[in-house]
Amino acid sequence: MSSVIGERLKVSVFGESHGRAIGCVIDGLESGIKLDMDAIRLDMARRAPGKDKTATPRLEKDDFIILSGVLDGVTTGAPLAMIIENKNVKSGDYDNMLKVPRPSHSDYPAYVKYGGHNDISGGGHFSGRLTAPIVFAGALAKQALKEKGIAVGAHIKSIGSVSDESFELNGITERELISLSSKSFSLIDEKKEEEMRAEIERYRKEQNSIGGIIECAAVGVPAGVGGNMFDTVEGTLSKILFGIPAVKGVEFGLGFDFAKANAAEVNDEYEINDGEIALKSNNNGGVLGGITTGAPIVLRVAIKPTPSISREQSSVNLETMQNEKLVISGRHDPCIVPRAVSVIEAAVAIGLLDLLS
Amino acid sequence: MSSVIGERLKVSVFGESHGRAIGCVIDGLESGIKLDMDAIRLDMARRAPGKDKTATPRLEKDDFIILSGVLDGVTTGAPLAMIIENKNVKSGDYDNMLKVPRPSHSDYPAYVKYGGHNDISGGGHFSGRLTAPIVFAGALAKQALKEKGIAVGAHIKSIGSVSDESFELNGITERELISLSSKSFSLIDEKKEEEMRAEIERYRKEQNSIGGIIECAAVGVPAGVGGNMFDTVEGTLSKILFGIPAVKGVEFGLGFDFAKANAAEVNDEYEINDGEIALKSNNNGGVLGGITTGAPIVLRVAIKPTPSISREQSSVNLETMQNEKLVISGRHDPCIVPRAVSVIEAAVAIGLLDLLS
Amino acid sequence: MSSVIGERLKVSVFGESHGRAIGCVIDGLESGIKLDMDAIRLDMARRAPGKDKTATPRLEKDDFIILSGVLDGVTTGAPLAMIIENKNVKSGDYDNMLKVPRPSHSDYPAYVKYGGHNDISGGGHFSGRLTAPIVFAGALAKQALKEKGIAVGAHIKSIGSVSDESFELNGITERELISLSSKSFSLIDEKKEEEMRAEIERYRKEQNSIGGIIECAAVGVPAGVGGNMFDTVEGTLSKILFGIPAVKGVEFGLGFDFAKANAAEVNDEYEINDGEIALKSNNNGGVLGGITTGAPIVLRVAIKPTPSISREQSSVNLETMQNEKLVISGRHDPCIVPRAVSVIEAAVAIGLLDLLS
Amino acid sequence: MSSVIGERLKVSVFGESHGRAIGCVIDGLESGIKLDMDAIRLDMARRAPGKDKTATPRLEKDDFIILSGVLDGVTTGAPLAMIIENKNVKSGDYDNMLKVPRPSHSDYPAYVKYGGHNDISGGGHFSGRLTAPIVFAGALAKQALKEKGIAVGAHIKSIGSVSDESFELNGITERELISLSSKSFSLIDEKKEEEMRAEIERYRKEQNSIGGIIECAAVGVPAGVGGNMFDTVEGTLSKILFGIPAVKGVEFGLGFDFAKANAAEVNDEYEINDGEIALKSNNNGGVLGGITTGAPIVLRVAIKPTPSISREQSSVNLETMQNEKLVISGRHDPCIVPRAVSVIEAAVAIGLLDLLS
Repeated sequence: MSSVIGERLKVSVFGESHGRAIGCVIDGLESGIKLDMDAIRLDMARRAPGKDKTATPRLEKDDFIILSGVLDGVTTGAPLAMIIENKNVKSGDYDNMLKVPRPSHSDYPAYVKYGGHNDISGGGHFSGRLTAPIVFAGALAKQALKEKGIAVGAHIKSIGSVSDESFELNGITERELISLSSKSFSLIDEKKEEEMRAEIERYRKEQNSIGGIIECAAVGVPAGVGGNMFDTVEGTLSKILFGIPAVKGVEFGLGFDFAKANAAEVNDEYEINDGEIALKSNNNGGVLGGITTGAPIVLRVAIKPTPSISREQSSVNLETMQNEKLVISGRHDPCIVPRAVSVIEAAVAIGLLDLLS
Repeated sequence: MSSVIGERLKVSVFGESHGRAIGCVIDGLESGIKLDMDAIRLDMARRAPGKDKTATPRLEKDDFIILSGVLDGVTTGAPLAMIIENKNVKSGDYDNMLKVPRPSHSDYPAYVKYGGHNDISGGGHFSGRLTAPIVFAGALAKQALKEKGIAVGAHIKSIGSVSDESFELNGITERELISLSSKSFSLIDEKKEEEMRAEIERYRKEQNSIGGIIECAAVGVPAGVGGNMFDTVEGTLSKILFGIPAVKGVEFGLGFDFAKANAAEVNDEYEINDGEIALKSNNNGGVLGGITTGAPIVLRVAIKPTPSISREQSSVNLETMQNEKLVISGRHDPCIVPRAVSVIEAAVAIGLLDLLS
Repeated sequence: MSSVIGERLKVSVFGESHGRAIGCVIDGLESGIKLDMDAIRLDMARRAPGKDKTATPRLEKDDFIILSGVLDGVTTGAPLAMIIENKNVKSGDYDNMLKVPRPSHSDYPAYVKYGGHNDISGGGHFSGRLTAPIVFAGALAKQALKEKGIAVGAHIKSIGSVSDESFELNGITERELISLSSKSFSLIDEKKEEEMRAEIERYRKEQNSIGGIIECAAVGVPAGVGGNMFDTVEGTLSKILFGIPAVKGVEFGLGFDFAKANAAEVNDEYEINDGEIALKSNNNGGVLGGITTGAPIVLRVAIKPTPSISREQSSVNLETMQNEKLVISGRHDPCIVPRAVSVIEAAVAIGLLDLLS
Repeated sequence: MSSVIGERLKVSVFGESHGRAIGCVIDGLESGIKLDMDAIRLDMARRAPGKDKTATPRLEKDDFIILSGVLDGVTTGAPLAMIIENKNVKSGDYDNMLKVPRPSHSDYPAYVKYGGHNDISGGGHFSGRLTAPIVFAGALAKQALKEKGIAVGAHIKSIGSVSDESFELNGITERELISLSSKSFSLIDEKKEEEMRAEIERYRKEQNSIGGIIECAAVGVPAGVGGNMFDTVEGTLSKILFGIPAVKGVEFGLGFDFAKANAAEVNDEYEINDGEIALKSNNNGGVLGGITTGAPIVLRVAIKPTPSISREQSSVNLETMQNEKLVISGRHDPCIVPRAVSVIEAAVAIGLLDLLS
């Protein structure tokens, strides 16, 4: 297992859901970045549960403590370590899972991989809670990117059958992304919020959960970043994005819509615009041959419905090797998508900063 | 730029389309693997152009020469280097591209990145021709995987509006994959071939090209392979898959269909089957929490239409900084999907062998 | 800068001398290792200062807190994070160093590298105090190695003009190494302790410091570990060893004595011993072609005299760019060698476990 | 096994002594470097055997062929692949070694590691011949470094009992290094050549071989390169240096002489010199805290006597598991040191360029 990512900017994430603390070490940050603590807290609040009824009502206050790498609010260039202490942990809810793996969770493969030694309480190291350090690292990465003129922002593209507008691939602005990345329920068309919340509520009431799509963009990345073959922007970002629980698909630009498209329609032609080279369209989502074109980077990720639902489900008992019914008690998110928006932004920011470092 | 991939099994790809030779070095292969040269040649033939009218009629015979790492047909454990020499290269067709970047190709971002020093002839290091060494490495990886009881195979899921059947996520057999991975036009439902070829022909006639989807699976991978966070099976495979020209999306299991799905419907429950733990469904495509479940690994990649079309397109002249019309002469693939099938298999095999090494 | 080491076992070290906490994250530890906390504490005590007058009298109690990766005293397989909190930090002693770099310290190159943003108090991230997390990680690594039948131990080979005996290259026993690795002043010939302490005391009295050599060995490593070219045992261990402050040389087996040796004298011949292949001598220190031979691994590191001495020294003022005299106040180790023994053992244990993972 | 080195500049070496070809792939070279082919050939000639009677008389003409990454003599930024074809290979000399490992060679540990599958003919992938691609890569690295104002050069510090002068640690000039790096028998004091050749001849006559020390330096590296902990200049260079056959020790600045030194004597003080910060001495060999100080980087490596000698030696038969006498036929270098000078320069150049990339 490796919870370390990055070539030049290395992020090492640690912690278990109900352990003493979770956190991360960020190695390779430039010295001299003045940190905006409020911006970090905002991103972490966007991810935190308990904001409203669409998310799990557990209190999960993310008070982060920076242990190293920052002096008088400015990065020193040394590894930046951060921890979030766990308080009032109640682990009883998860007792039976030690023997009966939850469907569509990592319980069973983790049991095989770790021979039963892994901490399963609250999901252990596999818990969605571990995305908090990722959001923290991403918030720092965003600040480093901001100094380079780069903005990253994402929105809920869809939840179940309800869709937000899509990014206009070649017309995304910094202002739009800054606005999105400050919302707790990020939408381009804010009027959709009510409808989406209703969709979530519908699944919550039936002890079920629902998936969705998050669309993320970055503007200001100059042309020429990344590489072909195995340093592609797409591959670098995907490596991190698939590390976020529930992500099951990643696409860039038109993505899977390319499958029915023809070149005459979707090729991105060039033109001179105010003396500069510009793309007439951006169907490739800002990346050609693995390298940025200077146009906005645009990607979408598929988020599966949270597998923790309170309905009775079929499973097996790992000790008796008999079939067994399972009811997961406790409260669970009927839809993780709204909270995942800042996590996706974080993953993209971390990946871009690594490519630019 | 890095054309090196892998943690334990490292594949380093080199060469330019019209250069002296292309090839790869595979570092970390186990010693003692008896190579089946015919199987390697078959995979390379599946990728090679000129087989029929759906592909480009250029002759591109891939006679590989193994320079090291093999003794009497058996791997020695030392790095295995392979080259394919280029013969009768005609580079005149590409002359104007030095100044006028082809739309949706890497020409422009590569020009920015390399300051105009990169070899643009035939696409240089960005050429689809560079997938030949990947197929070679993949063919070796498949043989190493075979000794571990693992089979990898892929098929054309769709080309434009014509679709093949999908894999039955939880019912894929080794025999099915072996069969698919020996076809030159890989389909589950072979009756679709004619229709697909007609679709391609339609776009060829209108000097256009069309995209598609390739679906790939692996069976026999035991539970417990991969890791959560940043060693996920999904992330590891995606990093390589996005290194293949024209890939713009990757999804696992239900992938983007998860976005409209609810957990009660799609959760993969467990049951005891013949005394063994089995999944009742495999919507997660064989991976949970980044780790294999023992069920078949199933993924899909979106392939964009090849951007080289002979229609006149708009571009700019990098020297004069004026708009300029571009006509790409020469013959080009109206659809790269059939030839890409063995490349996708190769990428998946390389990634799996790395995870298992 | 990267404070992350290792390919399969990754250790990420963080913290600054006078910061809130120092610590490390160990990623890739096997699950199921039962930790012996007393053994960890012993190793950390061996490194800790203040034991006697040969070391600095500052109190530096290393109470480590394990945050993750351990459940009921057994590793879970998830990243193991550990912190040591700093208490009662007094930073005034170091104020002038911000402007006047200490000779032979990292102050000046770090100032250039980090543009003056690095935390210089107490040496910041460059402080010898950062070896505490390395000793912690090494203590864990030793326990994992012990389960594989491998023991690591080191001794003070020399301090100034006083020498201990050398390891008998081909006759080192597990018992000998276990004994050495439990001593706080590790010597093969314990009668030398008094003389060595006198040597150190001599330099302390003259406000000076003295260097030395540490010799380290590992027994029980099977033949066939490591690789030639760039995965050599020697290179892998050196990469870590040179990360320890004050290490300026590393040699294996006869090391620099090979320079005057001839092959007829020093070649390590083979013989059959009790039906097993054995080396008649071990001048190569257990490694040939970068790969272990099964004989004890033996290496020596040169430790320079600690540069912090209280005598007046010449330096420059980075602001005024004028020459300036510098007196480093506070108390400093007149010889770091005794305390460095467990750090060298740790580095070797971490490197070996990485090679074996 | 990994024959790939480097973080940003990756060099992948392949080939076996008597195989079809040896070579390397250099990934991450900047585009736009104009190659000086004669300079490359000179470095390769310095390493090549057969120049005079101090080296093995086998003809080993290193005609390298660049396959990719260079266009019109200028690097393209794509991976640069190079091969050297083997001609007229005679492998009979090595037949018995398959069963009877040569003392102090990699034969036995390689046999264990590769289960007898490795190509043992001529040393296979472990052969000193594999340093030819390293010298090639180093020659390119030197040219890239030259554009940054950096020169690298080395000399024979000693062979057996005969010593050259040492570098004046703080007074090395670019001119001196350029001069050394163009010699085929590199000495500061050229009058020592005769004496050294006599020393070698003495061992050749007695069918023996002798070791030595090579001293290498780099000037022009600015302050602030490298990092502390695990990106140290010392560790990075050592990782590569220990990959060169016969290297058994590496030291920087005073190296092992630090062991008897006291700080008052050896601390490197600062002074203002012509308005610039300068070191009054350079006992640390240009590196403090793992980071360059701007002073010359100086290091020494210990080279063991080549283990191939024609005297009868004791070994074992791996099949019969009986003791067996071994006589290695063929001609062998009585001293590898003169030929290794350009290899050491290459390793240092590769490592520095990686740190600077």
